[in-house]
Amino acid sequence: MAQPSVLTPQGEDFPRWYQDVVQKAEMADNGPVRGTMVIRPYGYAIWERIQREMDDRIKAAGAQNAYFPLFIPESYLHREAEHVEGFSPELAVVTHAGGAELAEPVVVRPTSETVIGEFMAKWIQSHRDLPLLLNQWANVVRWELRPRLFLRSSEFLWQEGHTAHASAEDASRYATLIHLEVYNDFLEQVLALPAIVGIKPPSERFAGAVNTMTCEGMMRDGKALQLATSHELGQNFAKAFNIVFQGDDGESQYCHTASWGASTRLVGGLIMAHGDDRGLRVPPRLAPWQVVVVAVRDDDEVLHGAREIARELLESGVRSHLDTGRGSFGRRVTDWEIKGVPLRVEVGPRDLASGQVTLVRRDGGEKISVARAEMVSVARRLLDEMHDEFYQEALAFRESRTVTVASVDEALEGAQNGFARVPWDLLDEAAEARLKADAVTVRCLVRADGTLPLHEKEPDLVAVVAKSY
Amino acid sequence: MAQPSVLTPQGEDFPRWYQDVVQKAEMADNGPVRGTMVIRPYGYAIWERIQREMDDRIKAAGAQNAYFPLFIPESYLHREAEHVEGFSPELAVVTHAGGAELAEPVVVRPTSETVIGEFMAKWIQSHRDLPLLLNQWANVVRWELRPRLFLRSSEFLWQEGHTAHASAEDASRYATLIHLEVYNDFLEQVLALPAIVGIKPPSERFAGAVNTMTCEGMMRDGKALQLATSHELGQNFAKAFNIVFQGDDGESQYCHTASWGASTRLVGGLIMAHGDDRGLRVPPRLAPWQVVVVAVRDDDEVLHGAREIARELLESGVRSHLDTGRGSFGRRVTDWEIKGVPLRVEVGPRDLASGQVTLVRRDGGEKISVARAEMVSVARRLLDEMHDEFYQEALAFRESRTVTVASVDEALEGAQNGFARVPWDLLDEAAEARLKADAVTVRCLVRADGTLPLHEKEPDLVAVVAKSY
Repeated sequence: MAQPSVLTPQGEDFPRWYQDVVQKAEMADNGPVRGTMVIRPYGYAIWERIQREMDDRIKAAGAQNAYFPLFIPESYLHREAEHVEGFSPELAVVTHAGGAELAEPVVVRPTSETVIGEFMAKWIQSHRDLPLLLNQWANVVRWELRPRLFLRSSEFLWQEGHTAHASAEDASRYATLIHLEVYNDFLEQVLALPAIVGIKPPSERFAGAVNTMTCEGMMRDGKALQLATSHELGQNFAKAFNIVFQGDDGESQYCHTASWGASTRLVGGLIMAHGDDRGLRVPPRLAPWQVVVVAVRDDDEVLHGAREIARELLESGVRSHLDTGRGSFGRRVTDWEIKGVPLRVEVGPRDLASGQVTLVRRDGGEKISVARAEMVSVARRLLDEMHDEFYQEALAFRESRTVTVASVDEALEGAQNGFARVPWDLLDEAAEARLKADAVTVRCLVRADGTLPLHEKEPDLVAVVAKSY
Repeated sequence: MAQPSVLTPQGEDFPRWYQDVVQKAEMADNGPVRGTMVIRPYGYAIWERIQREMDDRIKAAGAQNAYFPLFIPESYLHREAEHVEGFSPELAVVTHAGGAELAEPVVVRPTSETVIGEFMAKWIQSHRDLPLLLNQWANVVRWELRPRLFLRSSEFLWQEGHTAHASAEDASRYATLIHLEVYNDFLEQVLALPAIVGIKPPSERFAGAVNTMTCEGMMRDGKALQLATSHELGQNFAKAFNIVFQGDDGESQYCHTASWGASTRLVGGLIMAHGDDRGLRVPPRLAPWQVVVVAVRDDDEVLHGAREIARELLESGVRSHLDTGRGSFGRRVTDWEIKGVPLRVEVGPRDLASGQVTLVRRDGGEKISVARAEMVSVARRLLDEMHDEFYQEALAFRESRTVTVASVDEALEGAQNGFARVPWDLLDEAAEARLKADAVTVRCLVRADGTLPLHEKEPDLVAVVAKSY
């Protein structure tokens, strides 16, 4: 539809475009307490789809869901030195409860390594209890001075996996499995988002980790967004919380633990990786509503026909939603485009009379007229095609904005516009500081062939540097 | 199986039996901060099934999920006088965050009427925006001095629905729909739990409500447990948060709001309504694992056969779990009985050789030998029968422990053992105080025919009084 845009164009002011989309697509609002977020029904429906797809993969990888308390004794955080240093500045602290001052203040969890470590120590006795594979879906709090909806909020929703293993190799193997088969598979197969899968340089690791894997996506302004991370924690938390097991030989040993998380930030990633000047474009496999059936007006006959079409799609396993036709047709179409529903079926009296159905793709906008009997199969085919095209488009965009360079100067230049690939050998402490002074960071390290390294000491690694969210 | 019980018998010490089951079935542990709870994987799997079944019903009733912040400005709670009075003693307060003292302390939500009211006011303009039907799945905090796992915990998980309507009638109609078609239908059809559906007397209403509906279940010790409540809030919150709409006539009017919630307490209800001296009995439609396939020992042939059986059940839509046969067979059977998995398939070399399968019901314990080809259909039939029997058994138990009386004295006597039905007319303030002195409360008011009254002023209401959790 050639309608005047109600959004700030991306090219004019990308952050403003993002704010506009989040508001006009009714995704989220700012909460009354600084940095908190209200996730509105459409935004939450997208999050629920993310949860469902990720949860299925997490369970297939053998982890079980559980739930640990929101409140953690402050003393727990102090047991792992790097961990407390990393999180202290962001903590929210409860000092009063039940009408009295607490003897020991409790912190609102910023992440749950510590409290879960305490219970792993209790539950693990022998090597037969290993690996212990836990996951939880929860809210966490990290006080945020410069909040942005979905991207940085003082409270956010996430899943955090926590696992204990008998050896460093098993911890590494499982964290890698999660990283590739849960996170990257979800990003590719559902979010249609090609991510660079690498490890963080030591300066960017999770507080308390010995290795952090990351999936980094490129947004439509060329900046990077960290989409999911998986951490090998070595024996750091096992020693701090006394997570030990008796081996085959009867000797007591510390476990090796790992943790891995992805959050509501993924919603921000989806918006910024696929959105255009007309609004969101929700990838079809994720979309809560894959097809919106729009009655051109709200008379009984048209509504009845639209309802039948919506039901037929739903019964065929296509997630459809009925727009019951109140208010201006043009305005409604614009609203559905802002919300990024992948396909639109427009239903008017002429379509009903002719036994035809008009399908419109959100991305292209061309109208496709098909016989009613073929509607479901055509809709399915279009949704499949759109998934592939979204992915290929995002990949081509990323490649067009990625340069391979041989110096820090060139890397800094390349990072103004997108990603720069530069030999990791070149990035000593001084070079990393130079990048940081210009808000450029090492997003991750990858092998020359693009695959995931085991650790940062492998030879010939490539650093991907960029500006980021 | 005639094994010695590892649990305190119910008849000897019911609270102790409850603690034993929660621990030995690996349902939950106490958290490190007073009153908090760790929900272990098996307990959480049960909660996930509760969520799924309730969420489907909530969505079918037209409500949409959303998410509102954990932190609420303290001032919000003061806007509705009864509400703040009700919740103040239980609040947890964050006074420090991000390394500094907060200008205004924030409370951790005990319930979200206030913050959701604030956003309803923002989102509702005209009668076309009504009804606004929201629900959220979240954690809430009410500081608890005498915590008990699942029943009373300082932090618990729940869903809270919040709706705004154009009229008192519509608010009442929708809250009643939720109460009957979501809560009571779920209790009957999934939890196999016959509840008494009534309204709370004014003294027991939710803080800020004009009417509170409740579902009250009888536990195996004759005490009542409140399983779900739905509140008509009149215009109290609409006035406090300025939730107004422009009617057809252009006049600005306050909305009528309602709220409704059910929590992890349902897990406690399931344990206490159906459990016996051998452990949990999870109702089959709820059970995360409806059938456990137990290999009698862990040799390759038996394991292979057991795995095939578990897969066939799963592919036929029966939720099955494979016990891979390590450790003592008797011990494993006892553990599965404590966990209350409805059906057990025991797989040994003789069964495999003969093409037979041995099914064992958790409740009765008799062994049923069936041909392998009939296994799925027999399992399905047994699960259906068990649902009906669980329900009928709980109903018969409740009726055997319910007396209909004509005086406060008799009501007090009846409530020592179960429920007493007494004319509501008899219960003036002094009589209610007499009951309370003996820890007996009016659980709810019902009509003489057992149906749900509209308000407490209807004639000839019956009060159901009992001791309770």
